[in-house]
Amino acid sequence: MPIDLTYSSEVTALVDRTRDFVRATVLPIEDRHHGDIAAAGGDGVRKDLQQAAKEAGVFAPHAPLEYGGLGLGMSDRAPVFEEAGYSLFGPAALNIAAPDEGNLHLLAHVASPEQRHEFLAPLAAGDVRSAFAMTEPAPGAGSDPAALTTRAERHGGGWRINGRKWFITGADGAAFMIVMARTSGQPGQRGGATMFLVPAGTAGLRVGRHIGTLDKSMLGGHCEVDFEDVDVPDSAVLGEVDRGFEYAQVRLGPARMTHVMRWLGAARRAHDVAVEHVARREGFGGRIGDLGMVQKMVADNEIDIAATRALLVRACWELDAGEAAGDSTSIAKTFAAEAIFRIVDRSVQMCGGLGVSEDLPLARLSREVRPFRIYDGPSEVHRWAIAKRRIGAAKRALRESAR
Amino acid sequence: MPIDLTYSSEVTALVDRTRDFVRATVLPIEDRHHGDIAAAGGDGVRKDLQQAAKEAGVFAPHAPLEYGGLGLGMSDRAPVFEEAGYSLFGPAALNIAAPDEGNLHLLAHVASPEQRHEFLAPLAAGDVRSAFAMTEPAPGAGSDPAALTTRAERHGGGWRINGRKWFITGADGAAFMIVMARTSGQPGQRGGATMFLVPAGTAGLRVGRHIGTLDKSMLGGHCEVDFEDVDVPDSAVLGEVDRGFEYAQVRLGPARMTHVMRWLGAARRAHDVAVEHVARREGFGGRIGDLGMVQKMVADNEIDIAATRALLVRACWELDAGEAAGDSTSIAKTFAAEAIFRIVDRSVQMCGGLGVSEDLPLARLSREVRPFRIYDGPSEVHRWAIAKRRIGAAKRALRESAR
Amino acid sequence: MPIDLTYSSEVTALVDRTRDFVRATVLPIEDRHHGDIAAAGGDGVRKDLQQAAKEAGVFAPHAPLEYGGLGLGMSDRAPVFEEAGYSLFGPAALNIAAPDEGNLHLLAHVASPEQRHEFLAPLAAGDVRSAFAMTEPAPGAGSDPAALTTRAERHGGGWRINGRKWFITGADGAAFMIVMARTSGQPGQRGGATMFLVPAGTAGLRVGRHIGTLDKSMLGGHCEVDFEDVDVPDSAVLGEVDRGFEYAQVRLGPARMTHVMRWLGAARRAHDVAVEHVARREGFGGRIGDLGMVQKMVADNEIDIAATRALLVRACWELDAGEAAGDSTSIAKTFAAEAIFRIVDRSVQMCGGLGVSEDLPLARLSREVRPFRIYDGPSEVHRWAIAKRRIGAAKRALRESAR
Amino acid sequence: MPIDLTYSSEVTALVDRTRDFVRATVLPIEDRHHGDIAAAGGDGVRKDLQQAAKEAGVFAPHAPLEYGGLGLGMSDRAPVFEEAGYSLFGPAALNIAAPDEGNLHLLAHVASPEQRHEFLAPLAAGDVRSAFAMTEPAPGAGSDPAALTTRAERHGGGWRINGRKWFITGADGAAFMIVMARTSGQPGQRGGATMFLVPAGTAGLRVGRHIGTLDKSMLGGHCEVDFEDVDVPDSAVLGEVDRGFEYAQVRLGPARMTHVMRWLGAARRAHDVAVEHVARREGFGGRIGDLGMVQKMVADNEIDIAATRALLVRACWELDAGEAAGDSTSIAKTFAAEAIFRIVDRSVQMCGGLGVSEDLPLARLSREVRPFRIYDGPSEVHRWAIAKRRIGAAKRALRESAR
Repeated sequence: MPIDLTYSSEVTALVDRTRDFVRATVLPIEDRHHGDIAAAGGDGVRKDLQQAAKEAGVFAPHAPLEYGGLGLGMSDRAPVFEEAGYSLFGPAALNIAAPDEGNLHLLAHVASPEQRHEFLAPLAAGDVRSAFAMTEPAPGAGSDPAALTTRAERHGGGWRINGRKWFITGADGAAFMIVMARTSGQPGQRGGATMFLVPAGTAGLRVGRHIGTLDKSMLGGHCEVDFEDVDVPDSAVLGEVDRGFEYAQVRLGPARMTHVMRWLGAARRAHDVAVEHVARREGFGGRIGDLGMVQKMVADNEIDIAATRALLVRACWELDAGEAAGDSTSIAKTFAAEAIFRIVDRSVQMCGGLGVSEDLPLARLSREVRPFRIYDGPSEVHRWAIAKRRIGAAKRALRESAR
Repeated sequence: MPIDLTYSSEVTALVDRTRDFVRATVLPIEDRHHGDIAAAGGDGVRKDLQQAAKEAGVFAPHAPLEYGGLGLGMSDRAPVFEEAGYSLFGPAALNIAAPDEGNLHLLAHVASPEQRHEFLAPLAAGDVRSAFAMTEPAPGAGSDPAALTTRAERHGGGWRINGRKWFITGADGAAFMIVMARTSGQPGQRGGATMFLVPAGTAGLRVGRHIGTLDKSMLGGHCEVDFEDVDVPDSAVLGEVDRGFEYAQVRLGPARMTHVMRWLGAARRAHDVAVEHVARREGFGGRIGDLGMVQKMVADNEIDIAATRALLVRACWELDAGEAAGDSTSIAKTFAAEAIFRIVDRSVQMCGGLGVSEDLPLARLSREVRPFRIYDGPSEVHRWAIAKRRIGAAKRALRESAR
Repeated sequence: MPIDLTYSSEVTALVDRTRDFVRATVLPIEDRHHGDIAAAGGDGVRKDLQQAAKEAGVFAPHAPLEYGGLGLGMSDRAPVFEEAGYSLFGPAALNIAAPDEGNLHLLAHVASPEQRHEFLAPLAAGDVRSAFAMTEPAPGAGSDPAALTTRAERHGGGWRINGRKWFITGADGAAFMIVMARTSGQPGQRGGATMFLVPAGTAGLRVGRHIGTLDKSMLGGHCEVDFEDVDVPDSAVLGEVDRGFEYAQVRLGPARMTHVMRWLGAARRAHDVAVEHVARREGFGGRIGDLGMVQKMVADNEIDIAATRALLVRACWELDAGEAAGDSTSIAKTFAAEAIFRIVDRSVQMCGGLGVSEDLPLARLSREVRPFRIYDGPSEVHRWAIAKRRIGAAKRALRESAR
Repeated sequence: MPIDLTYSSEVTALVDRTRDFVRATVLPIEDRHHGDIAAAGGDGVRKDLQQAAKEAGVFAPHAPLEYGGLGLGMSDRAPVFEEAGYSLFGPAALNIAAPDEGNLHLLAHVASPEQRHEFLAPLAAGDVRSAFAMTEPAPGAGSDPAALTTRAERHGGGWRINGRKWFITGADGAAFMIVMARTSGQPGQRGGATMFLVPAGTAGLRVGRHIGTLDKSMLGGHCEVDFEDVDVPDSAVLGEVDRGFEYAQVRLGPARMTHVMRWLGAARRAHDVAVEHVARREGFGGRIGDLGMVQKMVADNEIDIAATRALLVRACWELDAGEAAGDSTSIAKTFAAEAIFRIVDRSVQMCGGLGVSEDLPLARLSREVRPFRIYDGPSEVHRWAIAKRRIGAAKRALRESAR
């Protein structure tokens, strides 16, 4: 049987439960606090919502069954995460928010049994949050991971980590961090990174200020984190020494896609709000929704939603099939980040003054989705990677044919 | 098993055969004649190429098995038709060019056994070509089918057709036409159309001038066709009287998608030519393909190709599942027509002066793909339909909730 | 002598003084308070900055000479206001912020000597602020002014005003408002509006909540304002009864253009910040500013800045020449609002994570400029007006030629 | 007096005469021959039209008075050339077509009295045509002039030229060419070029095939030209030896702008045709021109026309003021080439099937304007130059401040 886009009845039912739960239980809280999760109560509201999600049977759809999750693959996550993302607080409620969700995915693939017990289990249960400490301030690792400057060196029977991280999402309040540090090679070289599991409270680890950003919906903020002579034992090494960049890829592709799923949900909410507005509101002698320029915006949103979802389906299927999916996830992420931005922007425009006000959720959604064109790789870096692969293949073909 | 995007090994093999056949046998002829199929020999070259396609085992992949075809559904047609479309002459070679391909699809669904024998069989075999006579000059049926003015009235024991058609693709040389005529109601009303099978040579049927257009690759041109007291028997009615608009929908959705498949192939060729150019050519101190602005164009092409294909997969799957797929085919067609145009336009741009010259196929491809944003429904009409459905649903929901 | 784009040496000198003043004195305060003028001290900081502007010889460049201003026409205002807009607080410092600047322009054209003395003089001096109470919540006057519902009726020897306004910029703290009320005709009719000068504190006038919006740089917020049996004398009528829509046009064209001038300055600051960033920052083996995709964004910003300025020059010249300039101001406003948004958005993108953070002014500038595509007429309404005029002229020409 | 955008009454009158002449005399011939100037009679039709232009008092508006022209500066040329460009044959009729117009400009600035007599005079009179032989096939001078490979070396008492040119507009039938050849330095170096005046018929000069391109309106085609031991005397040197790149700049800026003027006229014609179509044609229950999506296209065209014109005014004023105007001409050219393309493309779209047919001039206009995004410097090269200047200035400022 070729090509099948049907979801199983279990997944469809989960999607429905998630939709109902998010709209009935999560959205009202988001709206009451204008999408500011710190203002809404931070980890307190997260725990309450997670309890409710457990009761609603929608908690941790991505986590392995043995850790209390629903064990969904990437393809099946897509429609569920999209429904969760319909509210900015939905991902936290389901325990599928970044960076926890990506960390759990990584741990499930790379961690030792002891590490799973110590770190994965409480993370899957929602007992703790985590962070992924990779990005560094210039001239360190940013869009170009090879620039990694944080170092881990042999010391005592373990490792000593020194360096400065930046824009570490969720660091404030995280029970542990997965830290990327250079164990060999020089900044600028694509090799020699290792991942370490570092519990909060380890001596020398300091979570600094929250960097204020356009988005306000991430628990624990985007923080500066300093490592000053942070000593960890060998058992803190995640996977093997010097394979950190490789593991980062394990995390990266799926994490890109789950970002897309969640933000697509947010974009759909914006679109729904705008469509209801133009279907209701009168002006220029009729419903606003009967005006051609408004119809164009509605149709363009529908097209962008459909294309984002279709690219997501493709990339997730490749990931589930065990492919690296570098191209398809880069393409889906780049298209999606720009499409989602356009969808929300058009939704704002359709609602006029209301659209830029806090009386509707659109203004905050426009703030929230903007960074996604930068986070997880700016569109320019993804385009460069896509083009490099394609043109590189053409160069090789030319060399072959020239022989 | 959720979500599967794998093609069967039979389809994969057919795709490979089609790719090889088109590049080895069809492309050289297209290039020699700069894509002008009339200049290349018209039906003569078509018959030669179809013979070669039969020998290569790639002929009529869409036709029912009992008529010598390969019986592919919509999902499986997509990658095969895309490879055929890689050359502007490829669809004619495989007997899957518009309008024959859509007519065959329609006949397979609606025609009586006698009509199948008389019309479908020779069409499937490539013995004859056909036309679909629907569009009329203003103020008749164009983007708005309801404006249909051509009339068929009871006369003798059959029907007498009067009216003028316009932009009838392939009319010159067609062995028969499927003619849409009003059998009840008034122009402006969405009802009362009937389809008739009218053989060439029927008294009163006159194929007039070819309307010169940007595209030159359609056999039989885009013609004016006059019906002056054209008498046909009752057996000429395709399906039932007054159900013409309904049957048009049967033809429309799939025909939109096969257009997309074919033009996507053409866009991919443009992209391949451009990528090879920038991978080879030096300038500004290196390969052109190493310049960031060129890489951006390459990446944008890759994104547009992937998104077009992904939307196509979705719409075809819905069609194979027996859904009307009005939204998904409108979305795929609108996105694709614009994406394909952008892909070819960027490809031209990447090749500079060569890009607008006849020394590469890009200039002609840029001419050929432009009309697709208008043919088969202008983008504006599709957007209007998409928006109307969405906003209409919102209005209904508002009314429901107001009760 | 045809076509001259030279500014007089007086204007050039004023532009230079304004640039120096804004960068040395105003920008540091804006940056310290992240562009939130309320947080910076509201009217307190305004008064301090205005005092400094007076000392720097850059205060009130637009106000008539007899009221202590510099008496500049629209053409000369353009480069001065642009420099003022380089800081979000610059317009308040020079007393050329909306809505005061437009109100002053209106009063200078329409007010009686007594009204000038009572309202214009203190406004020009910066002693007071004002508001323009036109927009109403749905279904009242918004993008479509004809929907005006607030009414003024004869009562006692004067007028009694009843209605609700919405999104009234600067209302909180304004010493007076210019209120648009219907004195004849029905909502939906383009006639019968009158302007009234209503001092703060008038019985029945109530300034309600600030509507939270993406922008935070407007003194006095965007407020709800209620009029409940607000009685004013005949002398409160601005100009003549029932000519309010006409006077609104007097205010509208120039006010659109001064908005563009100010926001263009803000966009230029964003661009400057981004260009400095990419000129300084290293990445991918060189300066970021040497990457082609970054260069494309820089060039596109330069093009958008130049085109906005060129359209502004045209529209201002028409306004100074006494023309209605409906087309040229609509065109300049629509292009500018979208170009300014693009400029700031690209600037954000060029700075990556920093771009969406509060460590640079770009994130807040991206919030501040977004509403301009809606305020002062959404782009869609301007496009509709532009097209209507053009197509209307074509229809008339067709009727003429048909005679 | 600051900022004046008024044209003198002489210029206004000339604009009116040109408009009338082009519409009454030139357009009908263009339309009859579908814009193919070779099919219309080539130099024969050019001479007839030029005679008519002389009689209408609109001939050679740009040529110096002493050579029978009207002596207009760049600012004044803009509206006149725009009216000429309204027909694809208008520039030839007025003797202001490329490359003659740019060559005349160059000769007027650089040629010796003898050269003026021999070359400029007959060119200004329309007695002969000319070509500018600069561009070379890869890897020679194309977008990157420094790659110049054609060489001129001392030989006998003069110079011997060897090399191959490509895409030489108007070469077939030109009485002479201005040839750019390297007299010192190596390909890749920005120095050492010299310009030579080479009459047709000089031994060793061979005009080869016409390169077929999307555009068909240029007299003499785009040709390959070979120089094989072409000997010319010292008096053939235009200006001084080794200053060719410098002189190319003299020609370049103005030539870019006159291209914009002419193509803007063509775009305006497309827009006029489309607006008349939508003002006349009925569909979807009213005039097509009353549909919002169509109005959007009309408004966007108006905006693009206005912005192109405004940027042109700026650049021409700078050129008349004797400035290099590198930025303003690059900006105006880049914006204009893309805007003109969009205008024509939207015009096609507004006319549906008719738009891509030869029954309207739009299909051919869409072919004609496409290459302008590549000719005279691809948009990417202009953007690179614009960005390089801007970022270079920022780098210098950083170095200054670092001292």
